[in-house]
Amino acid sequence: MSGERPRPSAPPTISEVAAEAGVGRATAARTLGGYGYVSPELKERVLAAAEKLGYRANALARSMSTGVTHTLGVIVADIGNPFFAGVVRGICDTSRARGFDTLVVSTYERLDEEVAAANVLIDKRVDGMIVASAAVDHSSVGHIRTALDRGIPVVLVDRAVPSLDLDAVVIDNRDAAREAVEKLIAAGHRRIGFVWGPPVDKVPATRRELIAAASRNLWTDGERLRGYLDALDDAGIPFDPELVMVGPKVEKRAAREVARMLDLPDRVTALFCTETDGVTGALRAIRARDLSCPGDMSLIGFDDSAWAAVMVPPLTMIEQPVHQLGSTAAEVLLDVLGGAEPRREMHTLRTRLVDRSSVAAPPGRA
Amino acid sequence: MSGERPRPSAPPTISEVAAEAGVGRATAARTLGGYGYVSPELKERVLAAAEKLGYRANALARSMSTGVTHTLGVIVADIGNPFFAGVVRGICDTSRARGFDTLVVSTYERLDEEVAAANVLIDKRVDGMIVASAAVDHSSVGHIRTALDRGIPVVLVDRAVPSLDLDAVVIDNRDAAREAVEKLIAAGHRRIGFVWGPPVDKVPATRRELIAAASRNLWTDGERLRGYLDALDDAGIPFDPELVMVGPKVEKRAAREVARMLDLPDRVTALFCTETDGVTGALRAIRARDLSCPGDMSLIGFDDSAWAAVMVPPLTMIEQPVHQLGSTAAEVLLDVLGGAEPRREMHTLRTRLVDRSSVAAPPGRA
Repeated sequence: MSGERPRPSAPPTISEVAAEAGVGRATAARTLGGYGYVSPELKERVLAAAEKLGYRANALARSMSTGVTHTLGVIVADIGNPFFAGVVRGICDTSRARGFDTLVVSTYERLDEEVAAANVLIDKRVDGMIVASAAVDHSSVGHIRTALDRGIPVVLVDRAVPSLDLDAVVIDNRDAAREAVEKLIAAGHRRIGFVWGPPVDKVPATRRELIAAASRNLWTDGERLRGYLDALDDAGIPFDPELVMVGPKVEKRAAREVARMLDLPDRVTALFCTETDGVTGALRAIRARDLSCPGDMSLIGFDDSAWAAVMVPPLTMIEQPVHQLGSTAAEVLLDVLGGAEPRREMHTLRTRLVDRSSVAAPPGRA
Repeated sequence: MSGERPRPSAPPTISEVAAEAGVGRATAARTLGGYGYVSPELKERVLAAAEKLGYRANALARSMSTGVTHTLGVIVADIGNPFFAGVVRGICDTSRARGFDTLVVSTYERLDEEVAAANVLIDKRVDGMIVASAAVDHSSVGHIRTALDRGIPVVLVDRAVPSLDLDAVVIDNRDAAREAVEKLIAAGHRRIGFVWGPPVDKVPATRRELIAAASRNLWTDGERLRGYLDALDDAGIPFDPELVMVGPKVEKRAAREVARMLDLPDRVTALFCTETDGVTGALRAIRARDLSCPGDMSLIGFDDSAWAAVMVPPLTMIEQPVHQLGSTAAEVLLDVLGGAEPRREMHTLRTRLVDRSSVAAPPGRA
């Protein structure tokens, strides 16, 4: 009830200890919780204040004060994406081995859901969070700052957020995309479709506008687009906006856009797909025209899977170290919880181009 | 600290209200939390006791006393399985629409992980739980009983647990399997492999022992096996233990077992696969022998996916209503939290056989 005053006998809170010590609540929480970095001087002040006020973590209040619940919170954009399911597996395996339970929330790429998820996890007193964020700029990261302000360390996974100076565990998106497109170029292709670009309504007319649009959207997508453009540049192939798909990332849309690229006077002969649903959408369009892969259309995509290996033809795909992404993120976070200072750096893991049989010379040039 | 006595001014707990009213803690929690069924007579006694003791939920203690945190806990066997990812999506969509957040824990088919997950979710004060359990008998459901004893309603999804009298939202596993195998028989097959059976070391020699072994393992697997045997029985095809794969459910093992069935003197001509990894494993074995599907080998499997539709040939698959499984489970649970009495029944949803092109007559009979 508002206006209620604390009972005189109520034990001191972390906030009161922080005020007494003249430090922030997060610093007091880290000191009393025994995790994260606190300078020796501040630590001493917090411990003295705690002793003076008679602060003592009791079993009931522990999860509400020190944050030591041995639970990690994980926020992923879409648990229905096998990629994120694999990342979560890596996180769970590593945190379990180190005595931590893992709570997962899926936001289905909605920032409002992500904000709600962060609040729930804060409310549930997780010790730290691993986040694959839908946030793209400084205006959309308030919930992550809230967690940090409460002394809850956050590690980003898969997606860096340029406006946040945090540890981020990612893959070499730009290099991986460049390598894939270079492979298509080396096979003789010059009309290479990009499935998919930023979720804007209309394809920007210039390369610069396209990059700008990508920069206002997901970091991973922007990096993969840059890799595609890098490879075109290196080969002296001009950028053609007709060969870039934009709009919602759904399979049907990918199929329709690939069909459109097949109707161009100078039609597409190869595709680079940045997501699994782009690959299956592209294959639907190819099958619908009774075209063959790779005879009529070459294809390379993200991510490799058991299905890709048993396709006819087996698909050349980019394999991401999904489990390692998760386990590395968990390790970085658990090290911070164990007292290590956050390194606030990008941990970049290598992908691997799994060369199978979906790339050949363009039709008429075999 | 042990031995510490409650402060005289401490507000009464739910347990104290329950003792005063002469009811169980769960009954008091449901009454004061405003969820679940409580008989009018008991409800009146609880409310009278609460008034007498001056019980009042305050903001800080609310999540620890009444359980009304507007959070659901979800325990799934493997979030890396696209099936469970789809179920979780259904749960999240429905609970979000009704104002509840969802915390997910994946147990990777380990019962000890499931027990830990249940404890974490109880500890995090979820209002209710949806569980796809790895438990198979009464000796392994203690953690679910613990949740129920704490007044946390539990709804099972995908997997019924015969020893628990709870609401369970499942599919028609036995009918779906029978329909698939009937289709293979109708195409002329009599040598139909079953990938996969129970995770035992050796194939039981008799049909009765096989069913017994399945009954000691996952309910879904046992139901699918029964459907396979139903279809053989109806067609007068004798059970052959050589055509049943047992052991760990991994793709490589499925590939090896299908290769073994291809080496039999009277070799297998069709396969019924109960899981996606069984399908991809079977396809690996078929490709490794340069056999064609469906010319040399027909195949039907669980579950349909975007990949199955773009295979060569497009695969005939069983489509499960994954989203609806999740949304129905969430609805049943939220209704109980809203005051409805649990119906403690099996809610069986229909699957659909998606007929594509992976079934043909056996080789030599086309």
